[in-house]
Amino acid sequence: MAFSHLSHLDCARCGNRYDADEINNLCTCGSPLLARYDLGSVSVDPSDIAQREPTLWRYHEVLPVRERVISMGEGMTPLLPLPALGKQLGVPGLLMKDDGLIPTGSFKARGAAVGVSRAAELGVKAFAMPSNGNASAAWTAYGARAGMRSVVAMPESAPLINRTESAITGAQLYLVRGHIGDCGQMIGALIARSGGALFDASTLKEPYRIEGKKTMGYEIVEQLGWRSPDVIVYPTGGGVGLIGIYKALLEMLELGWLTGPLPRLVAVQSSGCAPIVQAFNAGAKVSEPWPDPKTVAFGITVPKPLGDFLILEALYATNGTAVAVDDSDTLATQALCAQLEGAFICPEGAATLAAVRSLRTSGWIKQSDEVVVLNTGAGAKYPVDVDVPVLNPGDSI
Amino acid sequence: MAFSHLSHLDCARCGNRYDADEINNLCTCGSPLLARYDLGSVSVDPSDIAQREPTLWRYHEVLPVRERVISMGEGMTPLLPLPALGKQLGVPGLLMKDDGLIPTGSFKARGAAVGVSRAAELGVKAFAMPSNGNASAAWTAYGARAGMRSVVAMPESAPLINRTESAITGAQLYLVRGHIGDCGQMIGALIARSGGALFDASTLKEPYRIEGKKTMGYEIVEQLGWRSPDVIVYPTGGGVGLIGIYKALLEMLELGWLTGPLPRLVAVQSSGCAPIVQAFNAGAKVSEPWPDPKTVAFGITVPKPLGDFLILEALYATNGTAVAVDDSDTLATQALCAQLEGAFICPEGAATLAAVRSLRTSGWIKQSDEVVVLNTGAGAKYPVDVDVPVLNPGDSI
Repeated sequence: MAFSHLSHLDCARCGNRYDADEINNLCTCGSPLLARYDLGSVSVDPSDIAQREPTLWRYHEVLPVRERVISMGEGMTPLLPLPALGKQLGVPGLLMKDDGLIPTGSFKARGAAVGVSRAAELGVKAFAMPSNGNASAAWTAYGARAGMRSVVAMPESAPLINRTESAITGAQLYLVRGHIGDCGQMIGALIARSGGALFDASTLKEPYRIEGKKTMGYEIVEQLGWRSPDVIVYPTGGGVGLIGIYKALLEMLELGWLTGPLPRLVAVQSSGCAPIVQAFNAGAKVSEPWPDPKTVAFGITVPKPLGDFLILEALYATNGTAVAVDDSDTLATQALCAQLEGAFICPEGAATLAAVRSLRTSGWIKQSDEVVVLNTGAGAKYPVDVDVPVLNPGDSI
Repeated sequence: MAFSHLSHLDCARCGNRYDADEINNLCTCGSPLLARYDLGSVSVDPSDIAQREPTLWRYHEVLPVRERVISMGEGMTPLLPLPALGKQLGVPGLLMKDDGLIPTGSFKARGAAVGVSRAAELGVKAFAMPSNGNASAAWTAYGARAGMRSVVAMPESAPLINRTESAITGAQLYLVRGHIGDCGQMIGALIARSGGALFDASTLKEPYRIEGKKTMGYEIVEQLGWRSPDVIVYPTGGGVGLIGIYKALLEMLELGWLTGPLPRLVAVQSSGCAPIVQAFNAGAKVSEPWPDPKTVAFGITVPKPLGDFLILEALYATNGTAVAVDDSDTLATQALCAQLEGAFICPEGAATLAAVRSLRTSGWIKQSDEVVVLNTGAGAKYPVDVDVPVLNPGDSI
């Protein structure tokens, strides 16, 4: 029985087909490539999967890695009930998939584990990428474990911890006085000059990180006993996680691991950078670049996602929606979640909870809905100074 | 079948017996109390445990919580092979138990999950404790989830992130211009004045956090296929983790889940605060207070652990040892681990790897030994400024 049932890659826009066992980036038409599997030949049963180790590699038949798994124990993160917060938001069936509990503390580890493993077995020795921070932390970590050299450009405004995380692995790291788009241009130029020595590991320019991220979808469905929730709410920057979850749902339907209807997918953005919300509200198929993006939810500051058409397709196809939330709501909800549920989540994760409040208020989410929000990272990666009384030894509290 | 087979508490020093279903702190003789179980009545088989969810609650028969589990999905953290670092250290069978992948990012979550759950079902509504940082992060988080009020005193020099983590839960937090001992005195005075309103949740003054921490021992043995490694290396401050692992090993022997010989247990301290190493080298049964403790491994800065006699007993009984490492070795090994294995571990965890190097050099660890080190927390909780080139958009990398 094959470890992976990967068959080929095809273009998400024009359908062109590519050999999966060669190194590929974008289609000649400029669009991302998606991995396809011979799903008909997958004979494992969900009940067999229950016996496997609690990592995302339990779904290895539908992952692209054929032989060499580079793992730090990633995946099967908790699907945590939020009863107190759910009560306050009017959604008793509120659950949070907590991807803070994963190597490097963010869901980017899923994409990096699968992307680096696949690149390594295809012979890649060095890669370069732009990153808003957490992707760099994850890719440089898995890259180090694989013995690869890595080059990353990151906005100077990225969280301090992401610098430390990347630098300590020995990565070649640059800070840029600009945004992720500026970083991407500089990395692109570097890769072009490298003459093939550097693999382009940019989001959606390499086909396999989405395969790692789709395991969020597999896990949610498995953890609910092989069924879907009513709604899945996702913080959306590049949107690879949301595209991946949608891809996983379709694959599980085809595998017979899941029956419909599909959950309604919700893309959450910040009101300071909401190209997908704008496009969704206009009924458009692609987004327009967002001018002057700005939000505390740094991980979702992507002014024009390369996979915008795939995100929008997933929203339209599942009767989903797109919501923008203000930073002040995000931060207030982050604190509320910690106070009521004990969970210190990242701003991006908090944005999904703020969106649940707004969608419940509007009636789009019903009280009876089972709603899964994605927390994409640990809040503890972003220390903020707090005002705390300072005492001397012997003082009375 | 009872969820928990808890039978009673007894004093670790004088053997006095206490009712486990009442709120207890120390024995009247001043020593910690340990939870005891009716192990003869536990009928679950290790193969049944394999079917359970990947959290520490899979061992519920030998945990003290009878009914109300407060969980955020803690436990069953990866047991990660470190092949490249192991090769460099001359210990090919090197493994790391990675407790960075747990709610609040440190092993303290184990003690807090079990300690808070048990306190809640015994009727505790509010607690107070001193903390070096991570214990506060964990206890205030689980306390918030349980709906409890919490008061914590923390040295001003504790990591910034631990303030943020505790404050965001709504805990009443104080910083103290002193060390953990000073904090303990102030909290003790507050509890005494509270007239029973505040439960004393200080290390080993409450009997149940050790029960949470012992699950590290259960997990290591289960993850190795219900057998012991040759050596377990533990960063030792208060030492509750090491005491807990030793307790777990003895329980598993009695349960028939494990056969001997036991692994040799190693307590690792910093050369800037090494009371256990000093006592071990002198063959003493208790430690002497360490004057002017100082180390980058902040979590193990405990000048005189309350459970010193239990730590030393575990080392002597397993033919173990105690080792002090310099901060410079700790930090160099932290970077080496990230570069070779991709894992960004905390300084306390890095100290265990530095100790492995020194014990291999001395011959105490043999090349053929299977060695498990404990990484007690995520390195990402401690950002350090790194020197990174800053570029302008359009610059050439």
